[in-house]
Amino acid sequence: MKMNEFEMIRAIREMFSDLPVRGTGIGDDAAVLHHPGSLLTTDTMVDGVHFILDKTDLADLGYKVMAVNLSDIAAMGGYPDAALLTLGLPKPFTDAQFLRLMTGIHDSAILYRCALAGGDIVRSDTLFITVAMTGHPIKEPILRSGAKPGDIIYISNKVGDSALGLKLLQAPHSVKVKSANYFLSRHFCPSPRLKLIEYLTEHYIIRSCIDISDGVLADLQHIAEESGTGYFLEMNELPVSAEEIGKEFEKDPFFFYTLAATGGEDYELLFTSEQSIDSAAVYEHTGVSVTPVGRILESGYRIGYFEKEFSPSDFKTGFRHFEGE
Amino acid sequence: MKMNEFEMIRAIREMFSDLPVRGTGIGDDAAVLHHPGSLLTTDTMVDGVHFILDKTDLADLGYKVMAVNLSDIAAMGGYPDAALLTLGLPKPFTDAQFLRLMTGIHDSAILYRCALAGGDIVRSDTLFITVAMTGHPIKEPILRSGAKPGDIIYISNKVGDSALGLKLLQAPHSVKVKSANYFLSRHFCPSPRLKLIEYLTEHYIIRSCIDISDGVLADLQHIAEESGTGYFLEMNELPVSAEEIGKEFEKDPFFFYTLAATGGEDYELLFTSEQSIDSAAVYEHTGVSVTPVGRILESGYRIGYFEKEFSPSDFKTGFRHFEGE
Repeated sequence: MKMNEFEMIRAIREMFSDLPVRGTGIGDDAAVLHHPGSLLTTDTMVDGVHFILDKTDLADLGYKVMAVNLSDIAAMGGYPDAALLTLGLPKPFTDAQFLRLMTGIHDSAILYRCALAGGDIVRSDTLFITVAMTGHPIKEPILRSGAKPGDIIYISNKVGDSALGLKLLQAPHSVKVKSANYFLSRHFCPSPRLKLIEYLTEHYIIRSCIDISDGVLADLQHIAEESGTGYFLEMNELPVSAEEIGKEFEKDPFFFYTLAATGGEDYELLFTSEQSIDSAAVYEHTGVSVTPVGRILESGYRIGYFEKEFSPSDFKTGFRHFEGE
Repeated sequence: MKMNEFEMIRAIREMFSDLPVRGTGIGDDAAVLHHPGSLLTTDTMVDGVHFILDKTDLADLGYKVMAVNLSDIAAMGGYPDAALLTLGLPKPFTDAQFLRLMTGIHDSAILYRCALAGGDIVRSDTLFITVAMTGHPIKEPILRSGAKPGDIIYISNKVGDSALGLKLLQAPHSVKVKSANYFLSRHFCPSPRLKLIEYLTEHYIIRSCIDISDGVLADLQHIAEESGTGYFLEMNELPVSAEEIGKEFEKDPFFFYTLAATGGEDYELLFTSEQSIDSAAVYEHTGVSVTPVGRILESGYRIGYFEKEFSPSDFKTGFRHFEGE
């Protein structure tokens, strides 16, 4: 890089001058926020683990590392306030790459109204980006532990898209789909559901919520374990992108449902509500659909697929079997 | 490593059960703090840049990455509340190394009363540790920009120790000192001056403050630039560890003062006050000395050394010359 640390910080300050921190931002030993939020989260992306530098548009990467943190704030029933950005940049990284990365971070920050309050820029042999973010709960924070037996389980938008995008990225011809670009874009640019959770918390009592980063099954398991409940998941109700997949979906829907249930990184919300939710009204106001996919039970983990029933362990074995083929 | 992510998180939760978060800590999408602080900072340490894994006790490293963040909170006139910890761990990292690292982090957290509210554990080819920390100002936050002409410049404890420790680590025979272990320990285990700043803010008006991470000269320059002032630094007043250096100090005091003025990572406080500070009383109550080393001026950057006077640029050239020998 030709830019030194101070030049990079100056470039960042200029870029973010259209999104001022409510308080004192970049430039002191710590930021000072006038209205500090009670929500605090952090997420990191590392080259070779969360992305492959050569296969990634750095603007997408910058957008995504912000989006996954914003998604955590959404999953708590919150809205974002300010972020800290840590960049670990390898020597061969160029000024153009740095600026491209920052463009994506800035786009995401502007879109979801999250100021940049500070951070750290360091040299590292491995490229990594860490974001820490604060936010405020809209009402009370929504925890994973709030689910009650009888609650309806909902999922926002669709699941499995990101996992399918990743498959297409790693092996473009492994699955034939109608619209590969759609799945790639869902993988690279997830949508934190901030507007959705704002609408939902204003109109319903959302008892528990998590963002789907590990996969529907794993994240539903987190909800059940933290709440001390069981669940019944109706796998064929999972909202999947059948149309964008095309004919392949009809040939083997079970494969795609399995992908939807176990694929991670969709960053959709999985939440539970005692009341039934008016999906049409939600869609009208937020542009995002919500789909009921099961119920919270007193105990036991059950997965239905039309007439059949699985346990989570059967199910994972089935999927692993497919992956090995 | 034999431990997986969930086992590591469980180990961390157990280890930190003696330091509960005031709110909801590890285990949800975000932490929820009952009394969120307005101060927010982050600092990262990367293998090969900030430390050399083979030459570092991981407990020291864990302690230090917490200490440098705690030092930022101290420099703002604050006390810490909660931290987020991100670990980027390479494949060859062992369970024992992980636990040793966490021991140091925990020791520091207990010593300075900073709970661990959450974080992220990821795989990375390069070991890195990022801490983000929140805290509360004791009174008003102390900024770098508050210095006024006439203010006395103070430094806590001593400076140059860490730089000398680093020199001894990199080339043990390059400098002969009486007590090498002292300097190594000051390099590995800096002391965040939280107790000192608490006492000072209760008894004096501290107008500006910074922690010395880049070196006295560089950090004083930050204060002057942010405050729109100049400074006069009396180099031979810098508090240096003459006794621990021993006879070498008498042979070439200028070298050691130069090291003290330009060596970084001491994490002592450099602050300015309109009033004179009663150093004896400060030492009695906090165990830390404070030494006046100069004045804030209307303009101009001047460095005195007995009868001679330098500009910062002369000075840096002089030092670089020595380094090249």
